[in-house]
Amino acid sequence: MRALVYHGPGQKAWEEVPKPQIIDDGDAVVRVDAVTICGTDLHILKGDVPAVTDGRILGHEAVGTVETVGSGVRTVEPGDKVLVSCITSCGTCRFCREGRYGQCLGGGGWILGHKIDGTQAEYVRVPFADTSVHPLPEGVPVEDVLMLADILPTGYEVGVLNGRVGPGDVVAVVGAGPIGLSTIMGARLFSPSRIIAVDLADSRLAAAKEFGADVLVNNSREDPAAIVRDLTGGLGADTTVEAVGVPDAFELAVALARPGGRIANIGVHGEPATLHLEEQWIRDVTITTGLVDTFSTPTLLRLLAGRQLDAGRFVTHRFGLDDFPKAYEVFADAAHTGALKVVLTR
Amino acid sequence: MRALVYHGPGQKAWEEVPKPQIIDDGDAVVRVDAVTICGTDLHILKGDVPAVTDGRILGHEAVGTVETVGSGVRTVEPGDKVLVSCITSCGTCRFCREGRYGQCLGGGGWILGHKIDGTQAEYVRVPFADTSVHPLPEGVPVEDVLMLADILPTGYEVGVLNGRVGPGDVVAVVGAGPIGLSTIMGARLFSPSRIIAVDLADSRLAAAKEFGADVLVNNSREDPAAIVRDLTGGLGADTTVEAVGVPDAFELAVALARPGGRIANIGVHGEPATLHLEEQWIRDVTITTGLVDTFSTPTLLRLLAGRQLDAGRFVTHRFGLDDFPKAYEVFADAAHTGALKVVLTR
Amino acid sequence: MRALVYHGPGQKAWEEVPKPQIIDDGDAVVRVDAVTICGTDLHILKGDVPAVTDGRILGHEAVGTVETVGSGVRTVEPGDKVLVSCITSCGTCRFCREGRYGQCLGGGGWILGHKIDGTQAEYVRVPFADTSVHPLPEGVPVEDVLMLADILPTGYEVGVLNGRVGPGDVVAVVGAGPIGLSTIMGARLFSPSRIIAVDLADSRLAAAKEFGADVLVNNSREDPAAIVRDLTGGLGADTTVEAVGVPDAFELAVALARPGGRIANIGVHGEPATLHLEEQWIRDVTITTGLVDTFSTPTLLRLLAGRQLDAGRFVTHRFGLDDFPKAYEVFADAAHTGALKVVLTR
Amino acid sequence: MRALVYHGPGQKAWEEVPKPQIIDDGDAVVRVDAVTICGTDLHILKGDVPAVTDGRILGHEAVGTVETVGSGVRTVEPGDKVLVSCITSCGTCRFCREGRYGQCLGGGGWILGHKIDGTQAEYVRVPFADTSVHPLPEGVPVEDVLMLADILPTGYEVGVLNGRVGPGDVVAVVGAGPIGLSTIMGARLFSPSRIIAVDLADSRLAAAKEFGADVLVNNSREDPAAIVRDLTGGLGADTTVEAVGVPDAFELAVALARPGGRIANIGVHGEPATLHLEEQWIRDVTITTGLVDTFSTPTLLRLLAGRQLDAGRFVTHRFGLDDFPKAYEVFADAAHTGALKVVLTR
Repeated sequence: MRALVYHGPGQKAWEEVPKPQIIDDGDAVVRVDAVTICGTDLHILKGDVPAVTDGRILGHEAVGTVETVGSGVRTVEPGDKVLVSCITSCGTCRFCREGRYGQCLGGGGWILGHKIDGTQAEYVRVPFADTSVHPLPEGVPVEDVLMLADILPTGYEVGVLNGRVGPGDVVAVVGAGPIGLSTIMGARLFSPSRIIAVDLADSRLAAAKEFGADVLVNNSREDPAAIVRDLTGGLGADTTVEAVGVPDAFELAVALARPGGRIANIGVHGEPATLHLEEQWIRDVTITTGLVDTFSTPTLLRLLAGRQLDAGRFVTHRFGLDDFPKAYEVFADAAHTGALKVVLTR
Repeated sequence: MRALVYHGPGQKAWEEVPKPQIIDDGDAVVRVDAVTICGTDLHILKGDVPAVTDGRILGHEAVGTVETVGSGVRTVEPGDKVLVSCITSCGTCRFCREGRYGQCLGGGGWILGHKIDGTQAEYVRVPFADTSVHPLPEGVPVEDVLMLADILPTGYEVGVLNGRVGPGDVVAVVGAGPIGLSTIMGARLFSPSRIIAVDLADSRLAAAKEFGADVLVNNSREDPAAIVRDLTGGLGADTTVEAVGVPDAFELAVALARPGGRIANIGVHGEPATLHLEEQWIRDVTITTGLVDTFSTPTLLRLLAGRQLDAGRFVTHRFGLDDFPKAYEVFADAAHTGALKVVLTR
Repeated sequence: MRALVYHGPGQKAWEEVPKPQIIDDGDAVVRVDAVTICGTDLHILKGDVPAVTDGRILGHEAVGTVETVGSGVRTVEPGDKVLVSCITSCGTCRFCREGRYGQCLGGGGWILGHKIDGTQAEYVRVPFADTSVHPLPEGVPVEDVLMLADILPTGYEVGVLNGRVGPGDVVAVVGAGPIGLSTIMGARLFSPSRIIAVDLADSRLAAAKEFGADVLVNNSREDPAAIVRDLTGGLGADTTVEAVGVPDAFELAVALARPGGRIANIGVHGEPATLHLEEQWIRDVTITTGLVDTFSTPTLLRLLAGRQLDAGRFVTHRFGLDDFPKAYEVFADAAHTGALKVVLTR
Repeated sequence: MRALVYHGPGQKAWEEVPKPQIIDDGDAVVRVDAVTICGTDLHILKGDVPAVTDGRILGHEAVGTVETVGSGVRTVEPGDKVLVSCITSCGTCRFCREGRYGQCLGGGGWILGHKIDGTQAEYVRVPFADTSVHPLPEGVPVEDVLMLADILPTGYEVGVLNGRVGPGDVVAVVGAGPIGLSTIMGARLFSPSRIIAVDLADSRLAAAKEFGADVLVNNSREDPAAIVRDLTGGLGADTTVEAVGVPDAFELAVALARPGGRIANIGVHGEPATLHLEEQWIRDVTITTGLVDTFSTPTLLRLLAGRQLDAGRFVTHRFGLDDFPKAYEVFADAAHTGALKVVLTR
């Protein structure tokens, strides 16, 4: 089969590799019908994720068809259409038992396209299939479901639920890239009174408006703190979300929160941030971090089936599997191409 | 009457001042029967709290007897024995309505000995008396109740409840001064499996043992991270509490927490801390800060009445009101005197 | 002034009475600008509420203008437009401190038009004004705000919040009168996947559809249990709400819930119901009851101001204050008039 | 091997049967080292549980040694000492994913000694071993661990956690049999101010005192409602627990709760109860039911290892496996023998 293989920093190729086989009796081999590229894949290609070594097939998001299953698999069978989630779950460790699958101690967590071969291929082996793939609801477009492999549960769990967004709340989202947009989309499910999107690029703010933001702040030329204060009687936002992954964005998210507010970090950070405890110690704030667990995937699938989540709105570009090199180019150059999510289908 | 009056950095005097009067019809004037000194009072005396100006009577903790009440006071009357809490609550603002009294927007919060005259005096005026004093349960020693004016609700609410301590948990408390000890005492109410006290002074660790810590770590010569890892299968503590107020202690508290753990900051900080988001972004941690609200005071009074909290254990030194200068000396020199809480009674 | 006065079962009159005065210094006297009639008022008129005695002015819902305030009132002043809530709160008792205002032990709770004179009058005295009236947001129609005096917080708190409705849930509401409709309106704020309305009258089901129900079941001719099972893979609804107040409706609400489901009773019951513990003991259900507390009123006002709640939709009939007898007739004969809420304005 | 086999109502025998084999590759066969008898087994013997048919080996509680495992078992291996829990969990269904193992839709739940052969035998086959057995902590007596197979998690989860017992609370437990006692033991972990045990038998009340009840009420001659009112300023208990399984006990548990209180039903009921909604609709109560899920077993094992739970206190009688008939006699005649839990060991 063909797959997108990492060959060290800056090097990748869409090349012929052996088709994956069942190794453990909990495995499934899934034929990939649709797959996408994540910002994390770009980080890997820069060499930022040393655990990914030469020869690794990238990708941790797919929708596909079960091809074969190990003898221990009970809940899916060949022919089933499934969502392959970015998080694999052993289902038995301490963390999996409390739904914290991203922290799996039993060999799962984020492993696809990271510690084992991933989904950017014609076929992928998924360990712990019973707890790591989700059957597709009927009548939902494949590319919509694909958005539930990573981006939507990430915004929903790590941003919206950790940030405890509720009816009537004021929510400020710092960063209007795909993850910020998924947070905005998820937050609307709880009827906040205002969603304020903060970004340095007008194009991303325009997207934020499409996804449901009420107030747009370009912090290259406007003061988000002043705007949030104006909208909240001087108090600050109920929930703020960091969806960038740089110290400044985190410090802004903290500064925008009201006393008693929640600050939910989603961004992947490469360096420390400063926490102004000399201001915040007295302000009753709650700061959360997290990797997605995908415990919410069944809920999101239900919302998708009921057309309550317009997940397809993320898909800006479509390709065939053999166009992987081109798809990477378009996705990596989002500033010019306007790419949010690119979908490659068989 | 006589009172302990602040006269600028380093200056205080136990001197004659006018007796307080009812100003607002929600006020009570309370005769002070017992009063204590807080670490915060020492900070004020260093000049660290600019809101406190020359002429201010210090103190925000007392037990006393209601002397007179304003026409609007409905729940206490002259002669009632009451606890004067460190937090005054207007009872009607947004934050008071949700029990977040420390953030009161209506003129309350921490005001005694800060924005208005305090309790280190023969009499004190308490605004919003209906929502700011608590009738004493019968049969409980006055000095035990006095520990509920600040220190015990602070450890309980900002440390134990924010840190969501539960049965079987491993709890690490960084700092074994009075606030750390109150956290240890409060944590035991939830039956954690281990309480690990971390401090630089063996004398404070000895106190921690008395208050219920199971494991003592002197981090001037031992590695708390290694010890916590050993006790938790390599994962880290379920809850960690910062009870010092310096960046190193906060960073240690963060480092000791397990994935999915809670880090509760109680310490009063004067400078920023570094938050290692490059490590923590993926670890599902929850960091909380907070000023005490004293919403738990009725619960703690009930536990005191049932002899389930040995609050009197904090009291190491006793004085008469006229000994205020001496009491400050003993309290300020805790390293040598071993003072935890000093009590001055009429 | 004129007021609607109860004179024993079946007897009421719109008649001249003395204008109310400030009695306690926490009181406000409010000029009634708009007022409505509640189903409870009809119960009182039947003699079902013995605490209401001859001479009592009825009504517990109003929007008005503050006329005079007692010396202790701090948060409103003459001329302020306010919502008079059905629940009065002393603000200091144990229950008020935890936001459970409906259970107020300090003289509040549901007292207007019950234990003291009510709002169906040209003026009303409101005790504990600081914690019992809410300033109006700008730009919101008075009759929309009036729906927040009782009906909307009742559906939201006792139905939606007690029933813990969440995104993707299936919610079954038994009874599509005004309270059921307010539950449907409130539930939508949390993006359930389906709201199933169950009623015996097609006209009420038609209203339920207008308010946002997805599935309509007339249980005079359809089997709600079969329909709910079909929609939920045989499991039952995540949340069911009883909004009628008769044993059969409660038993149906219990029967429609899934294992682990929540059953929120809102209905006012006059007799016991049968709880089938021989079936339910093993099913992990949670049953809640409750009187509204109106703690959610500020949230609902915010949603109203942001046009996220179409509260005005409840208003089917409008009258002048002098038309009270006619308004009662129309409201009491809802089966023919289609009345949901009638509004009387000055 | 030998096993205790059910042969229809009133009929059982300790007899020779085939040794169980691995059937599914997730199975483990466990050599039974210690086993106990549950009140439910007595119900089965009366014929009250029709799902149990002639030839079934009874028992759903054991501690043992893994003998063989299926090819898909990853977390235990032959020779491991394990607790066999009363609840078996498929680990993959909707309910197992949220920790509600007792409601397992994938073939688990309460199946041992019910739908498949149980633990009252020399060997037992346990399906879904990875999610259904728990490795033993070191240094804990086997018979103490055995109490965690059913009785302690039942009292803790269905009574204490569902009833949300907290520090300072007043808790009333109706029924002081083994389940009531386990609730009392579990409640103490949260430091309630009072635990009131209510029972008709003085001998059970004496046991309740041993297990930690503060107040004993024999409701054959005392009025529990009056006593609870006296202890709670007329309000009622914060949490009440039904641990009997008859309508009167449930109705008493409801009547003893305060406004806003929680009523946790644990009892197994054979007939409906009356719920006095005409009184309770307005009182903000929460009623829960539930089968144990055993999600708390790891927590309870930790508490056991730390000697914070004196589980061995339940064991009143000890036998060898061949004494099963005698053990049943003693257990069934608890009124005379004082049996709480009987333990049979190899």
